[in-house]
Amino acid sequence: MAELSVRSVLVTGANRGIGLGLVQHFLRMPKPPQWIFAGCRDPKGQKRGLHHGDTGSDLPCVGSAEVANPASIKAAAAKVGEHLGGSGLNLLINNAAILKVTTLETETLEDMSEVYTTNTIGPLLMAQAFLPLLKKAAQGSPSSGLSCSKAAIVNISSSGGSITSLYTWEICQATSYRCSKAALNMLSKCQSLAYKEHGILCVALHPGWVQTDMGNSPVDESVQGILKVLSTLSEKETGAFLDWEGKVIPW
Amino acid sequence: MAELSVRSVLVTGANRGIGLGLVQHFLRMPKPPQWIFAGCRDPKGQKRGLHHGDTGSDLPCVGSAEVANPASIKAAAAKVGEHLGGSGLNLLINNAAILKVTTLETETLEDMSEVYTTNTIGPLLMAQAFLPLLKKAAQGSPSSGLSCSKAAIVNISSSGGSITSLYTWEICQATSYRCSKAALNMLSKCQSLAYKEHGILCVALHPGWVQTDMGNSPVDESVQGILKVLSTLSEKETGAFLDWEGKVIPW
Ligand SMILES: NC(=O)c1ccc[n+]([C@@H]2O[C@H](COP(=O)([O-])OP(=O)(O)OC[C@H]3O[C@@H](n4cnc5c(N)ncnc54)[C@H](OP(=O)(O)O)[C@@H]3O)[C@@H](O)[C@H]2O)c1
Ligand SMILES: NC(=O)c1ccc[n+]([C@@H]2O[C@H](COP(=O)([O-])OP(=O)(O)OC[C@H]3O[C@@H](n4cnc5c(N)ncnc54)[C@H](OP(=O)(O)O)[C@@H]3O)[C@@H](O)[C@H]2O)c1
Repeated sequence: MAELSVRSVLVTGANRGIGLGLVQHFLRMPKPPQWIFAGCRDPKGQKRGLHHGDTGSDLPCVGSAEVANPASIKAAAAKVGEHLGGSGLNLLINNAAILKVTTLETETLEDMSEVYTTNTIGPLLMAQAFLPLLKKAAQGSPSSGLSCSKAAIVNISSSGGSITSLYTWEICQATSYRCSKAALNMLSKCQSLAYKEHGILCVALHPGWVQTDMGNSPVDESVQGILKVLSTLSEKETGAFLDWEGKVIPW
Repeated sequence: MAELSVRSVLVTGANRGIGLGLVQHFLRMPKPPQWIFAGCRDPKGQKRGLHHGDTGSDLPCVGSAEVANPASIKAAAAKVGEHLGGSGLNLLINNAAILKVTTLETETLEDMSEVYTTNTIGPLLMAQAFLPLLKKAAQGSPSSGLSCSKAAIVNISSSGGSITSLYTWEICQATSYRCSKAALNMLSKCQSLAYKEHGILCVALHPGWVQTDMGNSPVDESVQGILKVLSTLSEKETGAFLDWEGKVIPW
């Protein structure tokens, strides 16, 4: 299987957890991307070993501070555009998210809003702001199909957002989180239809249950799985909901 | 087929459209509910023919003013509780919703938030606030299974919220609306699991495409269909996503 090969990638929520793991794996690739942008709202994220392999220089930390803050997203898009010079952005990974451990009884207007704003509206606004750069990458690519090496939006979702399975309900109801991820899956499908004509692949991806502040098995396994899956995606998968092993998850 | 027979029902968004149609049909039933509560944020709703058949008196207009305003919802629940004396509420129909005609490009943080707050958070808060009255109705019922005559939450959803079909995408993208209804479907499923032990049936229902400020075929047909479907529901359907003819819609 061909390794994922992209010239430029942006990962939101790269401060820790899966986002950090993704950036570290990109850095360790035999042929790493020329541009890796780590979206960290905490500027200290830069200090956590996020240095470019070749040069040892700090990675551009685009500080997509609040993924649901339009002004901060626009600023991040401008900064990334500057770094890229005339090039486009191949891969946008919307990974940042929050989870509130709630029951249906303890769910509030405030939690419902905050979780939706971060987990669903954030990815929508990020994609809007980075669309010109994604389009540029697609236009600059010689290949006719869709792929992550050309131009793609990957929304990190969760099998907890599968309405069919309601995975782990007995352990953690977290209705605000489930609603936000079901809505994110809908968004991914909408994006896949709207952005296909621009040559941009869009998927929702469940990373597995991973040992971060949210989950509990090693990050490496998940991240390796994700990158492998991304390397195989084509126009057949745009709009799909897949897990870190490439298996389709029912809506 | 047995006609739907409930002692008490509350319909949100009863000021016009399908909500008004539902209330009018309840009023015209051979054996109408003893209590029909019309949730209208516009108090003039009371004047639109919403009079009780028997008595000609005004229907209690519970003014669930803003379905996403916790204070106003709590006030409505208290008012309904007073009217009901010691009785419970059999049927809560979360019908109020808004639709913004947007494209993925024109979607904003504000529209995404407002639509989600009304269409998804509203039904969650309504169910929380009316839960004690719904439980009371379930406890007071002699039947062991689930049914709308006993205790039920009916969330009026939309086939536009089906991630599988993305119905009418070519005509109207309305991503904010689709995301809110996909999330409402998730909420309905969560409610069905959480409230089953209390004897409360929960479903998401697509009313058809209806001639209101949102849709375009007669309200009567849809409302008759909905009431017929409601009369047939049992524990087999709790957590399902059905249309106004009772057909299952894929998530
Ligand atoms: N871990 C699992 O088992 C699991 C399972 C299913 C799905 N997922 C999904 O995988 C993704 C990553 O999860 P994780 O386990 O790595 O989570 P995590 O360890 O909790 O990290 C979340 C990251 O998102 C960032 N973030 C949160 N809100 C943000 C905002 N408003 N703006 C910018 N950044 C924000 C955080 O930044 P700070 O460091 O500044 O707080 C952090 O870097 C999420 O989409 C999650 O839903 C995880
Ligand atoms: N019509 C269709 O073809 C169609 C298709 C699929 C699904 N649906 C669904 O069916 C339901 C009813 O739709 P409709 O066509 O009857 O819509 P409509 O004619 O636009 O009426 C919407 C009703 O909701 C009320 N409402 C809106 N926001 C509210 C809030 N924050 N608090 C309280 N009430 C609020 C409105 O009150 P005001 O009068 O005060 O504005 C109005 O009474 C909705 O859930 C809709 O999504 C409709």
